[in-house]
Amino acid sequence: MTIYLDSAATTQCSAGAIEAAVGAMRENYYNPSALYHEGLMLKEQLNGVRSMILGALRAEGSVVFTGGGTESDNLALFGCKKPKQGDIVVSAGEHAAVYAAATELKQRGYDVRFCPVKGDGSTDFEAFCQMITEKTALASVMHVNNETGAVNDLGKFSAALKAKNPRALFHSDGVQAFGKLKLNLQRDGVDLYAISAHKIHAPKGVGALYIRKGIRLSPVVYGGGQEGGLRSSTENVPGILAFGAAITETIEKQGETAQNLSFLRQKVIEGLTEENDEIRLISPENGSPYIVTFTMAKVRGEVMQHALERKGILIGTGSACSSNKAGKRIPDALGLSGKWADGVVRISFCRNTTEAEIDRFLVEFKQIYGELSRYGS
Amino acid sequence: MTIYLDSAATTQCSAGAIEAAVGAMRENYYNPSALYHEGLMLKEQLNGVRSMILGALRAEGSVVFTGGGTESDNLALFGCKKPKQGDIVVSAGEHAAVYAAATELKQRGYDVRFCPVKGDGSTDFEAFCQMITEKTALASVMHVNNETGAVNDLGKFSAALKAKNPRALFHSDGVQAFGKLKLNLQRDGVDLYAISAHKIHAPKGVGALYIRKGIRLSPVVYGGGQEGGLRSSTENVPGILAFGAAITETIEKQGETAQNLSFLRQKVIEGLTEENDEIRLISPENGSPYIVTFTMAKVRGEVMQHALERKGILIGTGSACSSNKAGKRIPDALGLSGKWADGVVRISFCRNTTEAEIDRFLVEFKQIYGELSRYGS
Repeated sequence: MTIYLDSAATTQCSAGAIEAAVGAMRENYYNPSALYHEGLMLKEQLNGVRSMILGALRAEGSVVFTGGGTESDNLALFGCKKPKQGDIVVSAGEHAAVYAAATELKQRGYDVRFCPVKGDGSTDFEAFCQMITEKTALASVMHVNNETGAVNDLGKFSAALKAKNPRALFHSDGVQAFGKLKLNLQRDGVDLYAISAHKIHAPKGVGALYIRKGIRLSPVVYGGGQEGGLRSSTENVPGILAFGAAITETIEKQGETAQNLSFLRQKVIEGLTEENDEIRLISPENGSPYIVTFTMAKVRGEVMQHALERKGILIGTGSACSSNKAGKRIPDALGLSGKWADGVVRISFCRNTTEAEIDRFLVEFKQIYGELSRYGS
Repeated sequence: MTIYLDSAATTQCSAGAIEAAVGAMRENYYNPSALYHEGLMLKEQLNGVRSMILGALRAEGSVVFTGGGTESDNLALFGCKKPKQGDIVVSAGEHAAVYAAATELKQRGYDVRFCPVKGDGSTDFEAFCQMITEKTALASVMHVNNETGAVNDLGKFSAALKAKNPRALFHSDGVQAFGKLKLNLQRDGVDLYAISAHKIHAPKGVGALYIRKGIRLSPVVYGGGQEGGLRSSTENVPGILAFGAAITETIEKQGETAQNLSFLRQKVIEGLTEENDEIRLISPENGSPYIVTFTMAKVRGEVMQHALERKGILIGTGSACSSNKAGKRIPDALGLSGKWADGVVRISFCRNTTEAEIDRFLVEFKQIYGELSRYGS
């Protein structure tokens, strides 16, 4: 049996999610825009998932379904109103979905500023405060860093932003947080929040953007006017209903999962770093229970990944949400250099991860490290 | 049993498509960007579907997977290179995915010209020829009109365009044609072609854009660089593999289906119009075998739709690909006025449509028409 420790990249669909998707492919295959009963019922079911998401976010406003987290982030950054003379502040450790969109906005003439991150991947709050101005129109700070699991206190960032400019918008990429952390976007002053289905045991190809009440966006895609005109396209009914099923299951088990994974994560940290100062923890101690990242002085991340793969254990070396290698951007942002820059491995969990799997992983990892570090890699 | 005659709006997923989707949700749930074997294998499978699509299109170039037909059309129109001084010619009968995108381009300062359609929904070739100039940068003419089934001869339109300006791009919305007509985009000089999965028994949430070899587009969505950088997002693996399964089945049965549906369509035309000059055929006689559209002098389309629904028969009144009623745009474009403007019904078929269903539909339709037209509706 494969031991899958790359759940930050994607997850297996749950039985409940698959059942919901199959129901919408086989029986409830109608077009939600159709004016007969079958269409209207589906539209109501989609709205049910919207309400469920608002409940999980503890937020008031609207939810627009998209084709995934990337599109959600893009809709937020491109779609929000931002005067050309206003600047945009984005954390340098953002997922490519935000980073590349911000880079494109810079190309289009916006004053985009990249706020540095600390060595553990968290966004540097002091630097952020120095960077924002009374002219800042938009700031984007991810909730959980996908490379390290560092959790940013969104309430703190949002409050600082709005103290400088009460009309500024605060966006967050919540892809690695939704269903995993306890959320309260209302309290935290979040205006826009991007989420993805396939990180919580629902299918790929579905995401959503939360839009706080009163905020108006422009579309990125134009057409038949679905999703309040913000995302025209026949709705991905199987994907959205599967997302709904997965949300219910995920929220139900959220507390239990977090407790279990915190224990397993700590075991991994101790197992890899306690007797080996050639392996350094990158993640903060109090990061998301779902992600832990290390760097190795004497073994390249990819080499470790492939060696573990031969033992049936799958881990990540960095963001697998990128078709091209993320290259040096993230190691640079984390301040990794020299022998520490190429040794990054990311171990990420899901609610199905077991202690037996972690024990086996630790044994194999240590053995491989011993062999490879002896010869260099 | 429900008789479903609204297949131009969407279709039921085939057993093969569902099986492929479930396989990718349950077993092959990995991220195609992951660098281990499981990821690489999935990337290869996605490329297999790309090749299959190129084969079905008889075309050389690349295929970008998107979230649906609308996004594909948008990527074509927004993403293609078009000098601001060049004009854009778009048919007035286009699906909202093209029409709304073209309207947005007009807003952004492009000289967008809408070419009239004839009463049967086909694009007026003479008007098109008068409209294009040596400065036309882009023209978009749908392959099969989604409201009427009228088939435009793409080769003729493309040749006329390129005779005026060899560097102009020719785009076509092929959503109602793919898998249904025999295609040869190479011969027809098509540069960009949008298709959708859910019209041929594959899931909602997947589409693709064909891009002729040598043509470069700019992305609409920015992120991790998937799909050659043109559509960043973790690929919708279940949807794309299901699309692949559906394409195989559809192409295999294409000839047989076309023959069967041509017969059934003719039966519907004769059944509804032969003894009743209050019901007028809108579609051209030689339209797509999958769609036939009428207008009724004395009964509103919606009233007929709801009356049939009570008998367990589902039909369309116009584009169900629109969340808001398409309103008067399409009747106006077709030149329908007075008592003929509100009576439009669209009957659309799929390969599972049977003669028994059509017979039952005709009996019910005629009976309802008789009752409703007596009192007016």
